[in-house]
Amino acid sequence: MDLSVSPSAAPAGPSAKWYDVAVIGGGVIGHGIAWEARRSGRSVALIDPAPGSGASWAAAGMLAPVSELHYQEEGLLALMLEAARLWPGFAAGLDGGAGEAGGTGYLTTPTLAIGADAADRRALADLREVQQACGLAVEPLTVREARTREPLLNPGISCAFGIPADHQVDPRRLLARIGTLLAADDRFTAVARRAGGLLWDGGRVAGVVLEGGGELRAGETIVANGLGAADLQGLPEGLALPLRPVYGDILRLRVPERLRPLLRSTVRGLVRGVPVYIVPRADGTVVIGATQREDAPSNPGAVSAGGVYQLLRDAQQLLPAVAELELLEATARARPGTPDNAPLLGRASRPGSGQDIEGLIIATGFFRHGVLLTPAAAAICRALLDGQPDPRWARFRPDRFSGPRDSAAQDFSPKDRTTA
Amino acid sequence: MDLSVSPSAAPAGPSAKWYDVAVIGGGVIGHGIAWEARRSGRSVALIDPAPGSGASWAAAGMLAPVSELHYQEEGLLALMLEAARLWPGFAAGLDGGAGEAGGTGYLTTPTLAIGADAADRRALADLREVQQACGLAVEPLTVREARTREPLLNPGISCAFGIPADHQVDPRRLLARIGTLLAADDRFTAVARRAGGLLWDGGRVAGVVLEGGGELRAGETIVANGLGAADLQGLPEGLALPLRPVYGDILRLRVPERLRPLLRSTVRGLVRGVPVYIVPRADGTVVIGATQREDAPSNPGAVSAGGVYQLLRDAQQLLPAVAELELLEATARARPGTPDNAPLLGRASRPGSGQDIEGLIIATGFFRHGVLLTPAAAAICRALLDGQPDPRWARFRPDRFSGPRDSAAQDFSPKDRTTA
Repeated sequence: MDLSVSPSAAPAGPSAKWYDVAVIGGGVIGHGIAWEARRSGRSVALIDPAPGSGASWAAAGMLAPVSELHYQEEGLLALMLEAARLWPGFAAGLDGGAGEAGGTGYLTTPTLAIGADAADRRALADLREVQQACGLAVEPLTVREARTREPLLNPGISCAFGIPADHQVDPRRLLARIGTLLAADDRFTAVARRAGGLLWDGGRVAGVVLEGGGELRAGETIVANGLGAADLQGLPEGLALPLRPVYGDILRLRVPERLRPLLRSTVRGLVRGVPVYIVPRADGTVVIGATQREDAPSNPGAVSAGGVYQLLRDAQQLLPAVAELELLEATARARPGTPDNAPLLGRASRPGSGQDIEGLIIATGFFRHGVLLTPAAAAICRALLDGQPDPRWARFRPDRFSGPRDSAAQDFSPKDRTTA
Repeated sequence: MDLSVSPSAAPAGPSAKWYDVAVIGGGVIGHGIAWEARRSGRSVALIDPAPGSGASWAAAGMLAPVSELHYQEEGLLALMLEAARLWPGFAAGLDGGAGEAGGTGYLTTPTLAIGADAADRRALADLREVQQACGLAVEPLTVREARTREPLLNPGISCAFGIPADHQVDPRRLLARIGTLLAADDRFTAVARRAGGLLWDGGRVAGVVLEGGGELRAGETIVANGLGAADLQGLPEGLALPLRPVYGDILRLRVPERLRPLLRSTVRGLVRGVPVYIVPRADGTVVIGATQREDAPSNPGAVSAGGVYQLLRDAQQLLPAVAELELLEATARARPGTPDNAPLLGRASRPGSGQDIEGLIIATGFFRHGVLLTPAAAAICRALLDGQPDPRWARFRPDRFSGPRDSAAQDFSPKDRTTA
């Protein structure tokens, strides 16, 4: 598909392409936002030279607000719980008419949290206190009970907790399903180009400048291209997007027929203090992940041998039968981390004035939580498009890391302004 | 390429394709034999639907008669030493005019044999006594001396031996180089089809029946398709080819710039009794291998998660920096094993008569040694084609596992005879 498809009738010159919404970035977040924007009746262009090939391609797809709770991140918890609440309806809206093979792979598989040694047991028990204080259901199990549910668990594990609310989706299938639905929609346009920057018109963002030439005009431009967001030209002056790459290795394996089902639950372990998870898919594969590296590999897709070793070692510690699986794929990608591990999500204010910049929404920095947060990001962007922002999510405003503005500065000036 | 290319003028009907030599199987052995047969002036057809995609695709390419010596396999040693003697000339004949990037990757990298613990030290010291009794040079080194040669070796290793005679080639480049040279030769034909069986004419083999229809006539047919040999239709009645698949996992990794050169020598370790090797390539990659599994995976290319884990664990035990490499590829293939781990190489005799079956040479069962033995297999086949078999290699006759023939049986009868 290309730019020539389906521009909306709209306030633009005769030759320009104009959309109600331009979404930069075709990962799960960009797709979710594009899908919701279309459901709201808006025309949408999604700009990505290789949709779904970034962090979304690696992601395991755990929908795990409870087991993903980390200390000091309770602020994020409300957003994660909101996303988990939205998931069943979001999945149902996508899976309708898809058939089993064509859907998103959304499953309400429960989760077992497992500790390997005594220190892991103490860490998980401490975490459970925080989880309970937040009103989350975490059920202590004996090792025997856990092994009744999952007979292949190592009998030497130190503890187990049942977490019924943590589910899963298959991010690759999710992307394919949204992509299929959007491709059949004549008010949607996929633009297989790289966004070079933001297009400005007067004091507002008016669309996207494409790398290698050309532009695309839009009423609202949503920046959802993960780590690439910080590299865009024409970001508002003074808007800091403190994104850093957090690399992760992840494995996909096939379970031999004789070992099926390997697991009925997602297993999330703590093995000598290091997290590892094993997610069973309906198709007889499992996903084992994920390392967290802040090194500087030669390319973002470089898989760490030490990372693969650690994942296989720790997964076997929980589930010895992992040794008998067939390794299908080892993948590495960079996640977009932020200083507080929460997303940069919302409108940004004009320096000095405190007023929001028109035409621009930022939706990046989802770190480990992009898949879970997809329907929440979509709903929050929809509310922003509708002019009805939800005050609960103001804490994730993308300008929260931008220092106090120089009040003597000009009222507004984009960094690399591209005038229309 | 197809059958229509370059049939030799020869004793065949006007429409038949006839070659001096038909080689079934396009791995390193088949390619080496085809190359040598062309050098002898014969027209050659090489039959393989996917040349180089079998065990040769996985192989590390160690040319290691000394460190590959196993107890009770001294009979094989003479052949391995003969092959090692032939390698420099064989490589020079192929690499001439190739340029550095286009050649076979033949390197006279020395080998270090390393033991991890005290039991490994005893095992390697015992093996050295056998190696010395066979006249092979194996130099004991202190750990300090070994680490002077290879500074990244784990200081906790238990012993080291220098083996200057064990070298390497890159099997993928070897195949590509022979393939390039043959493709430019108008008396060579690559047939991208699967051989279904042998074609018989009277009491002799007269070529190859292709799967899906068609045939190819040849003065001599050489069966060099590894494990596939036993599945050919029309093998001589009573000829047992006791091949079994021995699966192996092998890894290819990239060394980050800051760690180069990771190694100057090939490192072959014994880690708690399990062999592992690390082969450094000129292009900044390394090969780590190889497991030996006699299981029954769902497909011959299924990579064992436990195998990958074991390789990474044991390689790190010798060389901790392995954790910092980038995993490029995990590959598994089946090697063609035989009861005595030696090849099935030569002509087979007619039951009862003791006379060789005309038109047929078997060259399979090379197990772990296919790459090393390639020039020897080629030379032995050439001598057979010339009618001057070398008596030293009669011990590898392919009918050595065929039981005593029923002398009351008909003088000769192929199992599934396809008459011309």
